[in-house]
Amino acid sequence: MKEQIGIGIIGFGTVGSGVYHILTTKASKLSQRARTDIKVILVAEKYPELLKDRIPVELVTTDAYEVINHPDIDIVVEVIGGIEPAYSFIKKALENGKHVVTANKALMASRGGSLLELAESKGVDLFFEASVGGGIPIIRPLKYCLAGNAIQRVMGIVNGTTNYVLTKMAEEGMPLDKALKEAQSQGFAEADPTADIEGHDAAAKIAILASIAFNSRVTAEQVYAEGIMDIAPEDIAYALEMGYAIKLIALAKEDECGVDVRVHPAMIPASHPLASVSGVMNAIFVEGDAVGEVMFYGPGAGSLPAASAIVGDIFEVVLNIKLKKMGSTGCSCFEHKEVKAIDEIDSRYYMRLDAVDRPGVLAKIAQVFGEDNVSIESVIQKNTYGGCAELVFVFYAVKERNLRESLKKIGQLDVVNKICNVIRVEG
Amino acid sequence: MKEQIGIGIIGFGTVGSGVYHILTTKASKLSQRARTDIKVILVAEKYPELLKDRIPVELVTTDAYEVINHPDIDIVVEVIGGIEPAYSFIKKALENGKHVVTANKALMASRGGSLLELAESKGVDLFFEASVGGGIPIIRPLKYCLAGNAIQRVMGIVNGTTNYVLTKMAEEGMPLDKALKEAQSQGFAEADPTADIEGHDAAAKIAILASIAFNSRVTAEQVYAEGIMDIAPEDIAYALEMGYAIKLIALAKEDECGVDVRVHPAMIPASHPLASVSGVMNAIFVEGDAVGEVMFYGPGAGSLPAASAIVGDIFEVVLNIKLKKMGSTGCSCFEHKEVKAIDEIDSRYYMRLDAVDRPGVLAKIAQVFGEDNVSIESVIQKNTYGGCAELVFVFYAVKERNLRESLKKIGQLDVVNKICNVIRVEG
Repeated sequence: MKEQIGIGIIGFGTVGSGVYHILTTKASKLSQRARTDIKVILVAEKYPELLKDRIPVELVTTDAYEVINHPDIDIVVEVIGGIEPAYSFIKKALENGKHVVTANKALMASRGGSLLELAESKGVDLFFEASVGGGIPIIRPLKYCLAGNAIQRVMGIVNGTTNYVLTKMAEEGMPLDKALKEAQSQGFAEADPTADIEGHDAAAKIAILASIAFNSRVTAEQVYAEGIMDIAPEDIAYALEMGYAIKLIALAKEDECGVDVRVHPAMIPASHPLASVSGVMNAIFVEGDAVGEVMFYGPGAGSLPAASAIVGDIFEVVLNIKLKKMGSTGCSCFEHKEVKAIDEIDSRYYMRLDAVDRPGVLAKIAQVFGEDNVSIESVIQKNTYGGCAELVFVFYAVKERNLRESLKKIGQLDVVNKICNVIRVEG
Repeated sequence: MKEQIGIGIIGFGTVGSGVYHILTTKASKLSQRARTDIKVILVAEKYPELLKDRIPVELVTTDAYEVINHPDIDIVVEVIGGIEPAYSFIKKALENGKHVVTANKALMASRGGSLLELAESKGVDLFFEASVGGGIPIIRPLKYCLAGNAIQRVMGIVNGTTNYVLTKMAEEGMPLDKALKEAQSQGFAEADPTADIEGHDAAAKIAILASIAFNSRVTAEQVYAEGIMDIAPEDIAYALEMGYAIKLIALAKEDECGVDVRVHPAMIPASHPLASVSGVMNAIFVEGDAVGEVMFYGPGAGSLPAASAIVGDIFEVVLNIKLKKMGSTGCSCFEHKEVKAIDEIDSRYYMRLDAVDRPGVLAKIAQVFGEDNVSIESVIQKNTYGGCAELVFVFYAVKERNLRESLKKIGQLDVVNKICNVIRVEG
């Protein structure tokens, strides 16, 4: 039996400092629960001035390879983010026979498969609970607790920044740019919020969840991502009027043609559990053929929530070491399923357009949709001003390609001034 | 490496038949994921006529010990419920070196500690995810994913029957007995609903969650349980008016004096995530010092949801067998904390009383509370009829013993006709 399990942390930013804090303040409780000593051996940080007076100087190095090659370190925690040098660090750590715990969504969503295979071949664990949903337990429940299910759909709010912005727009009628500025001043959005606002952060997360849910590797690059920049206060107002909330949704589902994985704003019925997830909170809604519907809700970001998930992973590795588990579960993507192009998906849609306000306009538009077999579920016409009418349509489920072709014709009608927005409807 | 892992099921009722269904219809996928064959070897059922035409006759026995002693069975699934003979079956199975998966809340809440210790001493797993929250993953997330947290509070809606009744009362203004009859006719309540309605089912579940959350054994017998029978339509109406929902809450929290574990109806602010959990759905809200607030939501009962949890447990055992894990994690209750008596708890309270409708009555009542240091947060007086007034008080947090003593005096005032109801306020 090992007397002590050594931890090395690479990166002492928001998450790394949280991990260090939990591991040191809870050392005795964790050790007691695991019945073995857990100790931080070394912290690698490129900017060691960050650590000044915060951790003993002898625990600090600027060289990540000192952590990766340290003989007393059993578990390497990677919390620097990004693809490189994180990939090289983790690869080398696994090759050295170290267990690895990471919060790196970008890396796991692009090279997770090869790293999990490497971990398995070396008989070590590679855990990444913190990569999706911050402190919310979701990877482990989805991978293990729900193993008896054919997962039908995973639908989540997995980006706190955009959810904060959309909540402010809905609750206080703020325009998007103002809500975004407020998110930045509150520390909920980065100085450059592109990755959040354009849906790339959420795309990496849903790629990870889809890979687990469907046992087939989906990378971030394969995920269609559409951000929230085009959401106007008018759309939010119509959504409320029709009994919907607009949320940035990360969605993965499966049919006989392949997996449908995407990130985009969507109208969600107000009665859906995701509709009331507000501010920076995250939630992931999972549908399985046995369990039905389950939802996991909590803080999707932040130092201590993310650190909570990482320490949970560390705790599992410690138990595995203590119980002499031989090998690891590795990658669960034993199938190879097509990822559907966005043109091929089926969805319901909301569309808002500006038209000329005169008799017969609605008939002209409706005729085009009718000819193209795009079925209208409901129409609202109002806000007449200066000879213009605002028309809002909701369509029954239709293939996206068909809708786009029809919209091209609609846009060319002389009675149509502008198609203002098209938003998918999920629920 | 074992070629095949054998499963034996004791009990072919609602849950057992669901487990059999999943294991047989998903055999190939589960075996592929676990990279080892998983096979049902034997099913024991006291009433074998239940199994007629549903499973091959050679898989059926009426003798549970045939399952427990079968050399090809590695994992025994106990789904008969109740204390005996389930306890004897599980004990013998563990002694035989079998891993055990159970959904038995009553047993785990009364003798879980000794069974977990026995499992550990035999180096086998004893999993019980299905014992709380049906299909909702909660035991494993709480025990492992949130291991880095000092858990501050667990608060859940863990009984679908009572939540259905309370939802019907709130949404349709039904009286309790009518709502309960409807629950029975819908199959959401048993012919004898006592264990649900009086809170004993929820008490067993919160005993299990409290034991995990606070690393200290809490048994069902130690949990204060108060049912929903006294909830009147008037209470529901006042709750709505004041911005609350009434839910049967199972709660566990900790302070320096011990753990406070109880089941009772409670007023929950309408904005709290638990307030919108309706019908037969369950949800468990967990507060940890690192993660903040997380919530797990889903179906708390039913054949396939419960079977989903059991098959998740089986899947973990299979991985552990495959990876030659030596030993088990056993019981995590390494501390011994006092369970507080209900008199010793601190809570906010709602009280509804009938008083004589004449000047000075409110002053008289308020004076008694003032002398007893029971602080009034808000008062509503209305519904005057036939010389009577209905008074509703909400009190700031106070020790329950102090409130009860004060209420005794209030009940003896000549201006008070009756104390109609007292409901704790949580949030």
